[in-house]
Amino acid sequence: MSARAPDAERIARAALVHLTEPGDLRLARAVTEHGAVLVHEQLRADRDVRGLASDVAERLRVLDPARELEQADALGIRFLVPGDEEWPTGVDDLASSAPVQGRGGAPLGLWVRGPARLDEVATRAVAVVGSRSATSYGASVAGDLAARLAHEGWGVVSGGAFGIDQAAHRGALAASGTTVAVLACGVDRAYPVAHTRLLDFIADHGLLVSELPPGRAVRRERFLTRNRLIAALTKGTVVVEAALRSGALNTANWASALGRPLLGVPGPVTSAPSAGVHQLIRTRDALLVTRGEEVIEALAPMGQALLTDRRGADSPRDALDEVERQVLDALPVRRSAELTAVARTAGMDRARVLGALGRLAEAGFAEQHDAGWRLGELGRAT
Amino acid sequence: MSARAPDAERIARAALVHLTEPGDLRLARAVTEHGAVLVHEQLRADRDVRGLASDVAERLRVLDPARELEQADALGIRFLVPGDEEWPTGVDDLASSAPVQGRGGAPLGLWVRGPARLDEVATRAVAVVGSRSATSYGASVAGDLAARLAHEGWGVVSGGAFGIDQAAHRGALAASGTTVAVLACGVDRAYPVAHTRLLDFIADHGLLVSELPPGRAVRRERFLTRNRLIAALTKGTVVVEAALRSGALNTANWASALGRPLLGVPGPVTSAPSAGVHQLIRTRDALLVTRGEEVIEALAPMGQALLTDRRGADSPRDALDEVERQVLDALPVRRSAELTAVARTAGMDRARVLGALGRLAEAGFAEQHDAGWRLGELGRAT
Repeated sequence: MSARAPDAERIARAALVHLTEPGDLRLARAVTEHGAVLVHEQLRADRDVRGLASDVAERLRVLDPARELEQADALGIRFLVPGDEEWPTGVDDLASSAPVQGRGGAPLGLWVRGPARLDEVATRAVAVVGSRSATSYGASVAGDLAARLAHEGWGVVSGGAFGIDQAAHRGALAASGTTVAVLACGVDRAYPVAHTRLLDFIADHGLLVSELPPGRAVRRERFLTRNRLIAALTKGTVVVEAALRSGALNTANWASALGRPLLGVPGPVTSAPSAGVHQLIRTRDALLVTRGEEVIEALAPMGQALLTDRRGADSPRDALDEVERQVLDALPVRRSAELTAVARTAGMDRARVLGALGRLAEAGFAEQHDAGWRLGELGRAT
Repeated sequence: MSARAPDAERIARAALVHLTEPGDLRLARAVTEHGAVLVHEQLRADRDVRGLASDVAERLRVLDPARELEQADALGIRFLVPGDEEWPTGVDDLASSAPVQGRGGAPLGLWVRGPARLDEVATRAVAVVGSRSATSYGASVAGDLAARLAHEGWGVVSGGAFGIDQAAHRGALAASGTTVAVLACGVDRAYPVAHTRLLDFIADHGLLVSELPPGRAVRRERFLTRNRLIAALTKGTVVVEAALRSGALNTANWASALGRPLLGVPGPVTSAPSAGVHQLIRTRDALLVTRGEEVIEALAPMGQALLTDRRGADSPRDALDEVERQVLDALPVRRSAELTAVARTAGMDRARVLGALGRLAEAGFAEQHDAGWRLGELGRAT
C-alpha cells in the first residue's frame, strides 16, 4: 500500500487553492507554518490569518472540495498533496527559496493527469524551456536534446507552449520517453488550443501538471508562477532560445532561486532568440551545453555515473571525478556554506559546483542544510 | 630621437635567426641569459653553447646580416629588436611563459613591413582568429567584430589566412582601422598566394610582421610558433569559429600560457566550426562574447574607461567597477598569487578576473610578479 496524505489534508488544500492565485506568499507561508487543515478551519471560521481578508470565509463555506475531488477523479485527474507517495518533494524547496517578483512558495497541491508517477519522473528530470517564437534551429536543437535526454531515461519537463516547449515535448515523445507539461490552466483544458492533440497525447503517455484546479483558464501572471514549478520539478533547467526579455528567463530565475543548475544552449550571436541565453552564460554563470550528454554530465546523480563507466572504483570516494573531489574538499564539516562560498573555495564557477553538489548529495557525500551546503555522512566518514 | 638598439645587437640577432626555427627554446634561452651579441660571438667562435652543435659556426661565418638588413631596408622592411622604441614589449612575456608543444621563447627579432608603429598598435590590440574554413556566419561575425574594434581604436591582429583571419583583417580595414597580419613566412612573401592583394594592402595601411627573415617560405610548424606572436602581441584573443582540432585553438593555448584573456564567439551547436569555441567556453573558462563592445569591456585598460564614462570619479579607486573592486580586494600585498588563487578569492571565473587584472595593472593598481599577481603601487597607496 502506498503512502497517502489524510483526506482532511487533501480537502483543506483543494479548498484553499480557490482563495488566491498560485504563488501567493501569505497563504503559502501560513500553510507551511500552521498546516493546511488549521488554516482552512480558521479561515472558514472567519478568523484573520496573516492579513488574509476574513471575507474569504463565505467563499470557503460554499465550496465543496470533496465533490471537486470526485469530479476530477472521474476525469482521470488526481490531486496530489504533501504526504502522498507521489508528491514530488523537490517542490517543497520552494517554501524556503527566495520569491521572484513577489511570488513564490510551495504549491498547495498539484493536479495531475496521466499515467506516469510524478515523484519518480521528478527524481530524474530536466526542464527544457525557451522562446515561443523559436527559430527552426532552436526547435531542432531542443527536439534533439529532449530526445537524447529521454533516451537516457530522463524526464523532459516543459510548459506545453509553442516553439521550444513543443519541440522539447515532441522530442521526448519521439524517443518514447516521459514528458511532463506543466500548465498555467487546469489540466482538463488545452492551452494553446492548437496544442490540444499534443497535450492529450502527453496526458495519455506522460503527465499534465498544474496547481490550478480543473476548469481554470490561463492568465498572464499564471505563466510566471507556473514557471517556478517547472524549475522545482527538475534537477536543472536548460534554456534553448530566449530573447532578452523572454519568459524563459523567468524560469531561469526560478532555477537560480532554487539553487538548481542553469544551463544554456548557445546559438548564432546574430540571432535575437539566442541573446538571452548568451546573457545567462556571460553574466549568470549558466553552463554552456551543446548536447544531451553534456546536460546529463552536469546533472546526473553520481550513483548513476557509478553504474556506467566508473564501475571499477574501489571506494565510493574513488568514484568521484576531479571536479567532484575539488568540490568535496571545499565543503565545511559542520556549519553550512553558501554556494558562492563553496564555489570560491573550489575555484570553480557556480554552475559546475552546483552540478557536482547535486551528485555528491545524491550519493551521501554532501547535504543541503539551511541555505547552504556541508559534508554529508559519507563525506565525513571517509 | 627615438630609442634604438645598438647595431651590434641587431646584427647578432639577424644572424642568429638563421640558425634554427622560430620557437627554439635552447637558442631563445641562451640569448635571454647571455645576450645575443655574446651568443653570436661564441657560436661563430665554434664554442658549444647550451648543446647547440658547434657546426653552426661555419654557417654563421658565411652569413652577412648587415647586408641582409640593408636589402630588407630597400624593400621597406625593418628588423626590430629589444631596445628599439618600436619593440612591442609584450612579446617578452614569451620568455617566461610555459612552452606549448615544446616550443616557445621570445622572438629574436621581428621583421616588420608597413606604416603603423608596432609598439603603439600592441598597446591596444586584439587577436581575432578562427577557422580557415569559416562559415558565412563566422566570417560575417568576425568582420563585424573587427570593424567595431577598429572603430573604437583597437588594432586587429590575425594571421592573414583564409576564413576568419581574412574577415577580421577586412573588417578592420573597412572601418579605416589598423590591422596586423603576423605571417609564417617572410614579410616580402604572400601566403596564401590568393591573399597577395590583401597582404599588400595591409602592408600599405597596417603592418605585416614575422620573425622569419625575408625570403623564407611557410612550413607547417611555423604556423604554430607564429601563433604565439599573435597571442603575445595582443591584450586578448577572440576565437570566432574553430573546429575541435583547429589551429586557432593553438593560438588560444598561447593566450592561456601567457595569461592573456581568452574570449569566444558562440555559434550554432549544430555547426562543427563552432564546436572548438564552445569547448573553450565550457572547459577553459573562455568568456562568451557576442559583439565588439563586450570584447572591449573585457580588455580595455581602465584609464581608457576613465576617460569616457567614469569621468566624474573623485579618486582613482572610485573609478573602479564592481568586478575590479572585488579583484583588487582579492590581491595579496607582498607575495604574488596565481591567477587561479585570485579568482578563487574573488569568487569569479578566471577570464573575468584576468580582464580586470589587465585593467588594474594598466592603471597601477595591480602588478604581475613572477608567475602571479599582487597589489601595485596605487593599490597599496589607497
